[in-house]
Amino acid sequence: MKKSEAAENSVIRIIPLGGLEQIGMNITVFESRDSIFILDCGMGFPEDEMLGVDMVIPDVAYLEEHIDKVKGFVITHGHEDHIGALPYILKKINVPIYATRLTMGIIEHKLTEHGLMDLTTRKVVTFGQTITLGDFHVEFIRTNHSIVDAAALAIYTPQGIIVHTGDFKVDYTPIYGDAIDLPRFGELGKKGVLALLCDSTNAERPGFTPSERTVGHTLDSIFDENQKRRIIVATFASNVDRVQQIINFADKYGRKVAIEGRSMVNIIETAIALERISVPENILIKTEELKSYPDEKTVIITTGSQGERLAALSRMANGTHKKVVIGPMDTVVFSSHPIPGNEKPVTKIINELFLKGADVVFQDTHVSGHACQEEIKLIYSLTQPKYAIPVHGEYKHLMAQAKIAAEMGVPKENVFLLHTGDVLTLEHGEAQVSEQVQSGAVLVDGLGVGDVGNIVLKDRQKLGESGIVIVTLVMDALGNVVSGPEITTRGFVYVKEAEDMLEDARIVTEEVILRCDEKGIGDYAKIRSLIRDDLSEFIWRKMKRSPMILPIIMEME
Amino acid sequence: MKKSEAAENSVIRIIPLGGLEQIGMNITVFESRDSIFILDCGMGFPEDEMLGVDMVIPDVAYLEEHIDKVKGFVITHGHEDHIGALPYILKKINVPIYATRLTMGIIEHKLTEHGLMDLTTRKVVTFGQTITLGDFHVEFIRTNHSIVDAAALAIYTPQGIIVHTGDFKVDYTPIYGDAIDLPRFGELGKKGVLALLCDSTNAERPGFTPSERTVGHTLDSIFDENQKRRIIVATFASNVDRVQQIINFADKYGRKVAIEGRSMVNIIETAIALERISVPENILIKTEELKSYPDEKTVIITTGSQGERLAALSRMANGTHKKVVIGPMDTVVFSSHPIPGNEKPVTKIINELFLKGADVVFQDTHVSGHACQEEIKLIYSLTQPKYAIPVHGEYKHLMAQAKIAAEMGVPKENVFLLHTGDVLTLEHGEAQVSEQVQSGAVLVDGLGVGDVGNIVLKDRQKLGESGIVIVTLVMDALGNVVSGPEITTRGFVYVKEAEDMLEDARIVTEEVILRCDEKGIGDYAKIRSLIRDDLSEFIWRKMKRSPMILPIIMEME
Repeated sequence: MKKSEAAENSVIRIIPLGGLEQIGMNITVFESRDSIFILDCGMGFPEDEMLGVDMVIPDVAYLEEHIDKVKGFVITHGHEDHIGALPYILKKINVPIYATRLTMGIIEHKLTEHGLMDLTTRKVVTFGQTITLGDFHVEFIRTNHSIVDAAALAIYTPQGIIVHTGDFKVDYTPIYGDAIDLPRFGELGKKGVLALLCDSTNAERPGFTPSERTVGHTLDSIFDENQKRRIIVATFASNVDRVQQIINFADKYGRKVAIEGRSMVNIIETAIALERISVPENILIKTEELKSYPDEKTVIITTGSQGERLAALSRMANGTHKKVVIGPMDTVVFSSHPIPGNEKPVTKIINELFLKGADVVFQDTHVSGHACQEEIKLIYSLTQPKYAIPVHGEYKHLMAQAKIAAEMGVPKENVFLLHTGDVLTLEHGEAQVSEQVQSGAVLVDGLGVGDVGNIVLKDRQKLGESGIVIVTLVMDALGNVVSGPEITTRGFVYVKEAEDMLEDARIVTEEVILRCDEKGIGDYAKIRSLIRDDLSEFIWRKMKRSPMILPIIMEME
Repeated sequence: MKKSEAAENSVIRIIPLGGLEQIGMNITVFESRDSIFILDCGMGFPEDEMLGVDMVIPDVAYLEEHIDKVKGFVITHGHEDHIGALPYILKKINVPIYATRLTMGIIEHKLTEHGLMDLTTRKVVTFGQTITLGDFHVEFIRTNHSIVDAAALAIYTPQGIIVHTGDFKVDYTPIYGDAIDLPRFGELGKKGVLALLCDSTNAERPGFTPSERTVGHTLDSIFDENQKRRIIVATFASNVDRVQQIINFADKYGRKVAIEGRSMVNIIETAIALERISVPENILIKTEELKSYPDEKTVIITTGSQGERLAALSRMANGTHKKVVIGPMDTVVFSSHPIPGNEKPVTKIINELFLKGADVVFQDTHVSGHACQEEIKLIYSLTQPKYAIPVHGEYKHLMAQAKIAAEMGVPKENVFLLHTGDVLTLEHGEAQVSEQVQSGAVLVDGLGVGDVGNIVLKDRQKLGESGIVIVTLVMDALGNVVSGPEITTRGFVYVKEAEDMLEDARIVTEEVILRCDEKGIGDYAKIRSLIRDDLSEFIWRKMKRSPMILPIIMEME
């Protein structure tokens, strides 16, 4: 069969199993008749309703069904929303992982924690290199992002070239390494790009995202103006470039640097080991050593810039950090923007820091790692794709990129706003959404993966909002109540002040039991249900509250 | 005693019982030797940790202690954070209420709902009028805000004149009524102002807040560009001026207007009755009547602009609204900004609306009702206060105003950043913080006021995050287990998949009981505590989760 025939008969399917309609949990399946590879394998943050859930990971039932075809994972960069689900998914889909050097370093740290290092195959890829995964050839292209070694991918398929940008921005003057390989995008455009999957995170924002280096100017001023004060900078643990800049200015102004927060320490140690961050000798000290230096000769770089309750900055702000005490001689810099939803906890910390007398700086101290509208246009202009498939973002972000694609000349019918689980089929050079496969979010709570579902979450919601009223009683084999009913509550009401009401509730229960007895109702399930109904109604009438009501009937043995 | 002697011997105390270190729950006590009046009486929104709490109201124990001195409530304007706690506090402190016309109309609606109309005394005040409350004379001064009839107050005391701005902005071209009475602020400045309590909400923002009329230009364009589509505008229920503008443009473009959302209907009905909003005849229709008009000849004004789960807009977006179905011919305008903390629910609604094909507009469609830095400076410039007491805002907002006060020439030691409960004493024309009185937030949950406290909230948090494991067993009088132990869980784990683990947990409990038996431990509290310890440890080891563990021992009668 000649090549053109192969193309003629080939079918390529692109199946996002996450990363659409939400921020995070990025994972996309590329499938031919004989082979599959998986692009990224990220975790997502739980929705507000997912009480007690630590993270969400993608449902990969579709991959398990087609396990024989799966050739490998291709990872674009080392952020949690692109690698965080790997340790969980690898337990089901153990195929080789391909990634650039720092990305792999961070993945390996994660695999070590999960005891998976000896069980997995990993291959470090360099920019410009092309790997083969069954019918697919995948080339790694250098981009810029808030972490070094971020890659876009050119995916060569029998149907044509598909370009996936990964998370990216255009930074002509990055802190570490080279600028995004724009010429290669141009070359691919000249060869002909069938489809472009492009980052939508900032597609609503006009203009260009400024270079990481612009933050340097602000940091320089802050270091200059605070030469008599200690400086504490909070940023994302994974923002390696930002940490590099802070270390550069610490060096310039003769300060020692302590890094606080386990996740940041891990990533920076990895970046140092792989020479992806350059640290002057003897500049790093441990937090315990801070007291050996004058405050104004130190910088603390810390996690917790998003107001995370247990992170280092939060503990410093509320006075529970064991090694760092905030005072009037501290300048705290938020080198980050709050992610939507985190505004309130961040503000809380700022207020606490002000109350402790510290100065707090949060303006012009951050730039995004994602492309704005003009950068997205640049990539469209270089690659000239036939089809546009906006990725990475909520629906409104995908919509915003769809508008850009249209402005850039992609016909409206060639722009695909996919939903998670959609199968986009490329056949005879034409694209269409052909079907839906199983997809969704699997909830991780502690060590449990998938054992918390809708029923458990609904119960948690009710318990959290209104508490629980437990009615216990003991019956003998003849259906006579031999002990109870007793009422126990948690999270419902301050018991001492509600004794009368709770006694009334007990009487309501006794009346139900009496009624059951009179009517000859002996079925426990029926009795429980009647108790629940009457007590709910009684409590709603008295208090306009709806606690969970749980009758427990014990039988005498 | 001559006047100067009276002044010489007088002491004035200003006591904020809320409204500082938080947004909302505004209430300030002004006290002389013989009299007290209360400025505003607002509700606050619960913090994130206050699960299931509907609102918070101020602790007024201090006022109850000094009930004989209390002469009245003076209310600045009709927003919930200034009037919302009145129905609750009036039950304890039943004194006359003084307010301008629309403010009183809204208060009366609230009192009617709580069945308090016949039990309270209310006096409508006009701008320029001065009322006497014991030792205090209080003059109402016209200001601008996002609701008509908002007042600042000049409080004449034996110590001097105290000016309180209330919530305000400077709008030279308001939608309804006149501009803020700046000349009167100037006159007071010339007389000499002892202290200024000024709104800090926007003190971090440079420049001037634009006139409400600027939103009109955007709304005009939206109406112009969407002549073939239905328009739905979401805004705050209490933003009477915004509703007026939308009605004006509906009139201009020949559309009927339906108002959705009970709170908005209430306020607009009150405003119409009191002629604080001008509505062309026959323009208002009921939502049920919408179907009698072509979509493009209607506007729906709705609540829910903050993403409130149960509000009209949210139900429209998720398809559960009974009368309004969103589709591709709808343009939905968010005429509001998300209040910090509401970004995620607002974004969720925007995504849902986009998914239903609607167009969504949320840029340049809102201006704030609060003064920015230049307006705050203007008030300082006019009133030239000796003392500055920033009010209304979190600590960081108060700090921002403190900086402005310093820039405007108020000596640093004359700027007081008060905390809730602080007593600021003015004596011999000098101010100092002299003591603290009881203060705080009382939680309202359903009909319960104050019966949900820290213990209940901590329990709700734990229940909401990890659920509950209940162990029940029955003992006879000799301490023998005659039934159980049985394990019941809610919100903990999907039981069917965890049967083995729960059986192991039951065995752990049995082992504890056996151990107690061997050691002769018969005390129920001790047994319960040992069960709790061992089960907690077992579950943490197995699952890394910490549900509430509740052992219940029933005794045979």
